[in-house]
Amino acid sequence: MRYSPSVTQLIAELAKLPGIGSKSAQRLAFHILSLEKSQVKDLTEAIVSAHHNTRLCQECQNYTDEDPCAICSDTRRDRSTICVVESPKDVSTIERTREYKGLYHVLHGVYSPLQNVGLDALKIKELFSRLQRHDDIREIILATNQTAEGEATAMYISRLVKPSGIKVTRIASGLPMGSDIEFADDITLSKALKARHDF
Amino acid sequence: MRYSPSVTQLIAELAKLPGIGSKSAQRLAFHILSLEKSQVKDLTEAIVSAHHNTRLCQECQNYTDEDPCAICSDTRRDRSTICVVESPKDVSTIERTREYKGLYHVLHGVYSPLQNVGLDALKIKELFSRLQRHDDIREIILATNQTAEGEATAMYISRLVKPSGIKVTRIASGLPMGSDIEFADDITLSKALKARHDF
Repeated sequence: MRYSPSVTQLIAELAKLPGIGSKSAQRLAFHILSLEKSQVKDLTEAIVSAHHNTRLCQECQNYTDEDPCAICSDTRRDRSTICVVESPKDVSTIERTREYKGLYHVLHGVYSPLQNVGLDALKIKELFSRLQRHDDIREIILATNQTAEGEATAMYISRLVKPSGIKVTRIASGLPMGSDIEFADDITLSKALKARHDF
Repeated sequence: MRYSPSVTQLIAELAKLPGIGSKSAQRLAFHILSLEKSQVKDLTEAIVSAHHNTRLCQECQNYTDEDPCAICSDTRRDRSTICVVESPKDVSTIERTREYKGLYHVLHGVYSPLQNVGLDALKIKELFSRLQRHDDIREIILATNQTAEGEATAMYISRLVKPSGIKVTRIASGLPMGSDIEFADDITLSKALKARHDF
């Protein structure tokens, strides 16, 4: 005996979610079965409503309820700088630092031929059309992840943007704050040495 | 800036699920936003339909689409033995061994005063009404977890059942197969020593 058809179906659907294996899917399914009807309604309505209401901001391609999004339509932000990130999560992570006051551009992925993600799948065309529409952009900060894919994507965008005369920068890599040199990996350590600065 | 209201709401709902922290809830939410409309429909319909179709089997209290459940209505199973488990997951785990041919009884929890789970919250009354309805039950196997709460619950049921003359057994505890004695904890090891058998 396995589970009943509708429970099996629920477990299968939950196991499709990222980071949810078959054990977690079972645990989630049984939790859902134990909920009150109103709680199930809250959950499914939140899913449907978020999916229905959310679109991509025509400017920065971030998820938003209103187009343009809150950041792109905020007149207090520095419109001369665009920080290019891989995913919407990265926007919220950078916002949390309260350090950055410019705009963003979300690529929705990185160039990853091994995972069948080509450059066409990224919002790079949208970035260029944005650079053409707005002539007040002075700097593009490439804040893709410090991975092979993130580096390759940053390199590609950099080569395409540079001829236009816009300044292109990359967020620094180095030893994380609070870390021990003893436990740093070789690549990080050699990058940190090369990028040493006066003190 | 945080996320838009409907995305914030979705993250909050997902973070209520067991084992899903705020980071996982964010990742799941963004995954859901990236799905096709039909995939979102599959997910929410699976949730609603599993919750709607699933009830408790009046006999064993396991989740089921039809009452009595597939195990309780299977005439080939040994109706003289009931294996008492904490949760529906445990039924499927024991079934996987293909070792057990009797019936089950699902308590839906264990006695855990610290987490405000009293004996009333468990399906113990239902177990006794079952023992009264069926006079062909010869053995109750207590297969609650080998934890303080599982032991206490097993002890409680054992004391209540024994006067009726029904045999009460507890699944064995000892060293797991493939394990090293060196790494066994003291309680497991002393239980394994006490429960030694001829070889």
